[in-house]
Amino acid sequence: MRLTAAALAMLLAGCSVSSTQERGAWRPMPIPGATEPSQVIANSAPSDWREIAPDNLMVMELPEGRVVIELAPGFAPVHVANVRAFARGGWWNGATIYRMQDNYVAQWGNGDAEVALPAGVVQRPPAEYERSLAGLQLLEIPYPDAYAGTVGYADGWPVAFDRAAGLAWLPHCYGTVGVGRDLAPDTGTGGELYAVIGHGPRHLDRNIANVGRVVEGMSLLSARPRGTGDLGFYQADRGETAVPIRRIRLASDMPAAERPRFEAMRTDTAAFNDYVRGRANRGGTFFNRPAGGVDICNAPVPVRRKS
Amino acid sequence: MRLTAAALAMLLAGCSVSSTQERGAWRPMPIPGATEPSQVIANSAPSDWREIAPDNLMVMELPEGRVVIELAPGFAPVHVANVRAFARGGWWNGATIYRMQDNYVAQWGNGDAEVALPAGVVQRPPAEYERSLAGLQLLEIPYPDAYAGTVGYADGWPVAFDRAAGLAWLPHCYGTVGVGRDLAPDTGTGGELYAVIGHGPRHLDRNIANVGRVVEGMSLLSARPRGTGDLGFYQADRGETAVPIRRIRLASDMPAAERPRFEAMRTDTAAFNDYVRGRANRGGTFFNRPAGGVDICNAPVPVRRKS
Repeated sequence: MRLTAAALAMLLAGCSVSSTQERGAWRPMPIPGATEPSQVIANSAPSDWREIAPDNLMVMELPEGRVVIELAPGFAPVHVANVRAFARGGWWNGATIYRMQDNYVAQWGNGDAEVALPAGVVQRPPAEYERSLAGLQLLEIPYPDAYAGTVGYADGWPVAFDRAAGLAWLPHCYGTVGVGRDLAPDTGTGGELYAVIGHGPRHLDRNIANVGRVVEGMSLLSARPRGTGDLGFYQADRGETAVPIRRIRLASDMPAAERPRFEAMRTDTAAFNDYVRGRANRGGTFFNRPAGGVDICNAPVPVRRKS
Repeated sequence: MRLTAAALAMLLAGCSVSSTQERGAWRPMPIPGATEPSQVIANSAPSDWREIAPDNLMVMELPEGRVVIELAPGFAPVHVANVRAFARGGWWNGATIYRMQDNYVAQWGNGDAEVALPAGVVQRPPAEYERSLAGLQLLEIPYPDAYAGTVGYADGWPVAFDRAAGLAWLPHCYGTVGVGRDLAPDTGTGGELYAVIGHGPRHLDRNIANVGRVVEGMSLLSARPRGTGDLGFYQADRGETAVPIRRIRLASDMPAAERPRFEAMRTDTAAFNDYVRGRANRGGTFFNRPAGGVDICNAPVPVRRKS
C-alpha cells in the first residue's frame, strides 16, 4: 500500500497526538448562518416528534405544582420497572425532598425512614450503568467529549458511548434523574431518586443507573433553598424543612382528564440534525461568534406539551 | 512511502474522521487510585495558595447574606475597572436581582431604570471577549473540549484558548460572572452583571466579557424563584418581586474588620495538577469507574476563606 508523504501528513494532521495520551486536533469550525434552534423547532413537522408513552411519564406533585419526568426503560429496564412499582405502590406519597446540594442534585424519597417496599420491587437490581449498543440507532455528533470521547443521541435520548466496547449510557446532564445508592453498586433500588440541578456531573456516568429526565417543572426542584448539612442534606435541627411530596404517579395510572401529554423531538430526523447544528452555531442578532461545537448537555432533546 | 494495510487501518482507527470535519480519536484513559481532590486540598501547602487581592473581591449584600465575587482584571481590564467604578460610586446600592432564568443566569443591576453613571465609568468599553496568550502561564489539560478544542488554566483561572490565534478567554462555567449587554457588542458597561446558575452556557464564550466568578454565597443566587417572563425576567404584574440589593462594595473599600479574606489555589503547582487529575479520576469508596477525563467546568479552581 502506498501513500504519498503529503497524503500521510494530511491524515496525521487530523490526528495529532499529545505527549501524554492520544488526543485529536479537533478545532471548532463555526458555521455562520445556521438556523436558530428555536426556528428549527418552529419549522418542524408533526412527524419530527414522538409522544411520550403514559407509562414512561411520572408526575410528582409538590405543594407548588408538578414535576414531570420521562422514564428511560431502554437504558435501565430493571430500575425503571422498580420506579414504576414504587409509584404504583404509593412509596413516595408522603415522602420528601430531603437533599438540595448546590450545583449538584435535588434528591427525594424516604431516606432512612422504614417504609415497606411495594410489591414487585427488585431489592438488588443489577448495576444498569450502561447498555449494549446493539439495537440503538446512533446519531454521533462531531464534537469531542471530555468524558466519553464520542457522544450523540439514540432513541430520543442523549447518549455517551464507546464503540470499541459496544456500550452506551445516559450522560448526567441538567435535569437527568438518577438512582441514589449507597457505596456498593447494587444498593440503589430506585426508591431514592435525584435530579441534577447544576453543571452536568459527568463523573457520575457509568457509576449510577440513570432512569430518566425532568421534562417539566424543573425549577420546582432547582430553585429550592440548599441544605446546609454535608452533601446538602437538610438539617432539621437548623430549622431546614424537607419538602413534602404529595404523591408521585405514573401518567398511565392517572384519570384520563388529569393525564399530562408530552412529546419529545425524534433524534433520527433531518430536523433534529439541524437543531443540534443550530445549538452548536448560535447566531441571530445576539451572537457575534458561533461556537462551532456543543457539549452534549447543552443540546438537550426538545420536549413540549402535546395539545 | 509504504504502509501495511494493517498499519493504515490502525492509523485510521485512531483517527476516525467524521464526514464534516476533522476530529481526533481521543478516548478517556482512567487512572485508578488517583488522589481524591478533597485529599489533595487537605494535603496542600500554604504556598499552593494565593490570597485574592481586596481590590479584586466584590461583596454583594442581600437580605439573607453575602455573595462574594472575585474579579478578573487580567481578562477584561476595562470592564473590571468599570465594575470597580460602579461599586465605588454606589451604583448597585438599591439595585435588584431582576432576572432568574432556570439553567442559565441570575442577573442584577438597575435594568431600565435611569440611574446616573458613576464617575470613571467608560460608557462604551471595547469588546473584551478574549485576550492575548502573551504573558499567560498556561497549564493545558489533556482532555478535549467541544467549544475550544483546548482548555486549561492560567493565573488561577480556567481558560479556553486557541494557540494558533494566540488568544485565551474565560469559559462560561457555573458561577462565572459576565457583563450583560444589548445586541451590539459594545453596549455592556458592567453595570448589569449576571452569574451562571446552570450548566455552563459555553456558547456565550467570546460573545460576552466575563469579569469574574462567585467564590462564596452562590446559593443566594441559584436557589431563588425563577422569573416567569421571557428570559426569566421577574414579572411585577404576576406578583414576582425583584430581589433588593442592599449594596455592593469592593473589599478594599470596606473597614478592615468587615473585610472578608479569600485564597484561591494556584494553578501552576504540582498540587493543582494532582487536583485536576483527581477531578478527572474520581475514586474513593463511591466511584466504581474513574472517568478518565474532566470538563473544564467540572474542575473549578478551589477557593476558600483565609483565616
